[in-house]
Amino acid sequence: MNSITCAFIGLGKMGRELCGRIGGAGYRTLAYDLDPEASKYAEESYKNVTSSALLPAVKNSAVVFSCLPNSHHVSEVVNNLLQQEGTLNKVQYWVDTTSGHPGESQKIASELMSKDVIFFDCAVSGGPAGATAGTLTAMVGGDHSAFGEVQSIISSFAKNIVHLGPSGAGHAVKAVNNTLLAANICSVSEGLIALKKYGIPLDVALKAISTSSGRSWVTQQRMPEHVLTRGFDYGFSLGLLCKDVDTCMGMLQESNIPAPSLRVTREIIQVAKNILGDESDHLEIVKIIEDWSGETIE
Amino acid sequence: MNSITCAFIGLGKMGRELCGRIGGAGYRTLAYDLDPEASKYAEESYKNVTSSALLPAVKNSAVVFSCLPNSHHVSEVVNNLLQQEGTLNKVQYWVDTTSGHPGESQKIASELMSKDVIFFDCAVSGGPAGATAGTLTAMVGGDHSAFGEVQSIISSFAKNIVHLGPSGAGHAVKAVNNTLLAANICSVSEGLIALKKYGIPLDVALKAISTSSGRSWVTQQRMPEHVLTRGFDYGFSLGLLCKDVDTCMGMLQESNIPAPSLRVTREIIQVAKNILGDESDHLEIVKIIEDWSGETIE
Amino acid sequence: MNSITCAFIGLGKMGRELCGRIGGAGYRTLAYDLDPEASKYAEESYKNVTSSALLPAVKNSAVVFSCLPNSHHVSEVVNNLLQQEGTLNKVQYWVDTTSGHPGESQKIASELMSKDVIFFDCAVSGGPAGATAGTLTAMVGGDHSAFGEVQSIISSFAKNIVHLGPSGAGHAVKAVNNTLLAANICSVSEGLIALKKYGIPLDVALKAISTSSGRSWVTQQRMPEHVLTRGFDYGFSLGLLCKDVDTCMGMLQESNIPAPSLRVTREIIQVAKNILGDESDHLEIVKIIEDWSGETIE
Amino acid sequence: MNSITCAFIGLGKMGRELCGRIGGAGYRTLAYDLDPEASKYAEESYKNVTSSALLPAVKNSAVVFSCLPNSHHVSEVVNNLLQQEGTLNKVQYWVDTTSGHPGESQKIASELMSKDVIFFDCAVSGGPAGATAGTLTAMVGGDHSAFGEVQSIISSFAKNIVHLGPSGAGHAVKAVNNTLLAANICSVSEGLIALKKYGIPLDVALKAISTSSGRSWVTQQRMPEHVLTRGFDYGFSLGLLCKDVDTCMGMLQESNIPAPSLRVTREIIQVAKNILGDESDHLEIVKIIEDWSGETIE
Repeated sequence: MNSITCAFIGLGKMGRELCGRIGGAGYRTLAYDLDPEASKYAEESYKNVTSSALLPAVKNSAVVFSCLPNSHHVSEVVNNLLQQEGTLNKVQYWVDTTSGHPGESQKIASELMSKDVIFFDCAVSGGPAGATAGTLTAMVGGDHSAFGEVQSIISSFAKNIVHLGPSGAGHAVKAVNNTLLAANICSVSEGLIALKKYGIPLDVALKAISTSSGRSWVTQQRMPEHVLTRGFDYGFSLGLLCKDVDTCMGMLQESNIPAPSLRVTREIIQVAKNILGDESDHLEIVKIIEDWSGETIE
Repeated sequence: MNSITCAFIGLGKMGRELCGRIGGAGYRTLAYDLDPEASKYAEESYKNVTSSALLPAVKNSAVVFSCLPNSHHVSEVVNNLLQQEGTLNKVQYWVDTTSGHPGESQKIASELMSKDVIFFDCAVSGGPAGATAGTLTAMVGGDHSAFGEVQSIISSFAKNIVHLGPSGAGHAVKAVNNTLLAANICSVSEGLIALKKYGIPLDVALKAISTSSGRSWVTQQRMPEHVLTRGFDYGFSLGLLCKDVDTCMGMLQESNIPAPSLRVTREIIQVAKNILGDESDHLEIVKIIEDWSGETIE
Repeated sequence: MNSITCAFIGLGKMGRELCGRIGGAGYRTLAYDLDPEASKYAEESYKNVTSSALLPAVKNSAVVFSCLPNSHHVSEVVNNLLQQEGTLNKVQYWVDTTSGHPGESQKIASELMSKDVIFFDCAVSGGPAGATAGTLTAMVGGDHSAFGEVQSIISSFAKNIVHLGPSGAGHAVKAVNNTLLAANICSVSEGLIALKKYGIPLDVALKAISTSSGRSWVTQQRMPEHVLTRGFDYGFSLGLLCKDVDTCMGMLQESNIPAPSLRVTREIIQVAKNILGDESDHLEIVKIIEDWSGETIE
Repeated sequence: MNSITCAFIGLGKMGRELCGRIGGAGYRTLAYDLDPEASKYAEESYKNVTSSALLPAVKNSAVVFSCLPNSHHVSEVVNNLLQQEGTLNKVQYWVDTTSGHPGESQKIASELMSKDVIFFDCAVSGGPAGATAGTLTAMVGGDHSAFGEVQSIISSFAKNIVHLGPSGAGHAVKAVNNTLLAANICSVSEGLIALKKYGIPLDVALKAISTSSGRSWVTQQRMPEHVLTRGFDYGFSLGLLCKDVDTCMGMLQESNIPAPSLRVTREIIQVAKNILGDESDHLEIVKIIEDWSGETIE
């Protein structure tokens, strides 16, 4: 049993898996969620995990993990804790696995620094399945020299851990990564519809493309496993993807970068979100592109 | 030594490598190119390969391979041969490894069928390096039942051989594959420029993305090996890429498919081709996108 | 009564109005349509217009007018007549008011020239209402030196007659004009939706824009009269608009011109055509853009 | 001589013309600019205009006009004045002719309301030439019931005065108007290049289009008078146009409106701004599109 105690805040689809991996790696983990059912579930499902209220969880931990819908939520929790005298005394590190916003992460980092808490933005890629398997990629921003101590905890859920620069860098790369994912979903859909109209079986076409220069994770995994099957069951919501893409659009806007390809991606997924709603699977973007031509990808 | 004799027409950068692999696999190969230096070079460099004029090469072969700049060239050679009585008497199969046009391949196939020659469009992906190593992907269209006999010859240069449907199907999938490659070059460039402006080292960012959901062959291979190095030395010309993308655009147009993502890709690479010329490396598209923001990907 | 006899081929919504204006100007006009009801209607409705079969109409005329769905139809009629020995003996000029294709018009012109018939492509803009009022704009291509003689007949229906160059020039400018119309429909729709979401009354906004630098015929006429009213009743079909835009796209493709703005227009109206059908009014494009945001322009 | 005294803050290219028209209409006008040369110039050039420092100008006026680079500058001046006790006591109305930002205008309006000053955003369209001639369009937002009193002053420089809604409405419509202007510059440029490649004289083509359905202020005025002449001398800077387009993009983003046409416009003009700089004429966008195809519009 490891002597470091961790707090884990936010036990949604992704958070609970991360929390379970940390506990499973031998860290005593105090789990908190707004929904008491969620923390009870975590306690019952994972080793070394105990349900806790927010304040005691943080008070008794050296490392706090958060996994929330967006940086705004993280900021609220942090501000709340900063106003409770002494709550953060024991805390040395805060690791935020939210798909967050680089600019807001920089602000949170400097606020926590006033209490000697070192903040890392630690965006993860690989989905709940990758979390369960411990094979996530972690994209980390924050003080490199202090990173060693949390890296070993992060390695309980991530196989590829990449330190990318100062605060916000992890969230920035995650935002770009997810925008590329969205771009690939759009462009691959359009290409497959052209092949379908041509009478070519799409499973075979994807097999060919996936060993060729046009390949991407979308041709290799998303399309064959979740779209051709008509399952649309990956489990990553369109609303969350759109949030990440908007973070990337903000970065492009701030730096005056013309980006016609990524911009057209944003317009397409915005159509999908407006028509299908936040809660659809992110792969349902495909359905909008299908409607435009009257052809299905199957 | 295999008893089947092959003709190989077109000994450019790609063709000579394919020709060398066929000879190396033990097939007697008669090599022809408009440029006599090219066929002399093939004879000197590869096992079982003999330089030959066009007519005798075809007259003495059971299988003809072609690797030409586009389907129009293939059509010209085929029409030329069809007018020479008896030239195709021994030929059973014609395998066209050109990055060709699906519609023109259908026409060539039906013309050759009048002389009992079975035509396969056999587009390849993997570049000269993949040819040398014998690890290409071959995307094949044509009569499936007759495919077995040529498949073993094709396997001398291709590791993944995928039969995709009737005549033209191989060229159609290749056109879509290369259009996805072009789309990825554009969108990844835009994303990397955003990260560069943010101060993030791009080699590390590419490492993170390349194990995450936004990954593609462009993040995994093209960018780190040929762009970050500022080499732009992959060896696939912008002119040839544009030809393939235009084939895909034709397919979209014929089937009335709206494809905003692939279309914007075409507009960007057309700018690159107009400004940089046909002979630039296809990765120099990146330079146009860099000029738009004044930031370089390195 | 003018001594020149005209034939008029194609008596659809637009053609019959043009035919009526020519007759009304005092030219004896022999009217032909595939549908006998249409030529009977023309005879009954207009002065100096007589219903006729195709061959006698052409045989007895010095000037032939055509107004057909596209250049392909014109080409068929011309080829048919060329095969009937002597039919074109009296004909000096052929004026094609179809929204045609520049390249096909060039071919038709050279075929007719073999029988000493001078061909003019004479695209018109202004719709059936403009035809009735005789206020159309005519965009003409063909031999300038011979143009004087037909110009006075054309002036029976067009107020602005512009000679633009050799054969095909009229159809080329019409194709670009209609593509700009389509582009304006799309961009104005997007802008108005932004203002609607902001709570601004659109009739007033259009009044302001229509005397400012962002104005276009779409802000001045199409939107206030046919969209804000929710009438969508201009009477120009989406299918015909798409045909003209595709002609323009072909021109861009042939000349390797990157045109991201016009291209995105084509993708949007292709979506509209696939979903709403050829027969919708061209302004119903607006409905697709409305669906994307869930906001209506009214 | 009218009894109302006006202050005019900001005497750039546009501001000084507006100031001159107000003075010319008989209003005593106190003119202020950061650059003393500018206010001296206004005093010397226009009737009833006196150069003044900022505080006395405002202290002695019932109506304050501002014409500054953007809303941020307006906000700074207003905040500065609000901190000087009593400065705004006499002021009843503030009319901001800046091409401003709707959201910031709402904030300024509510701040000024605390001192009983009624704020109107009054964006103008028509350029310095329209100001000199008094033929501008004014797009006004703010309290409609109070508008009558300032409307007569505004009519000294504007012919079309349109009240569009509450605070910010004028700036919102101006932003959309200028974005449509930018969109038209892009799409017309692309279309003209296609016609140029086809060998059609562009002055004649523009004449045809400008009486047809594809017409816009860009085909009727900007292209023939400032681009075909190669003058690029309209006098409205690219930097200011981009600012207005970005205001429109912000409105689209806030309301989740997919707008592929306006978005592609923004990407193109951002390229132009990055390459040509803020101070270029807004029509120099054309040069970027020309470079893409290697063809000039002349």
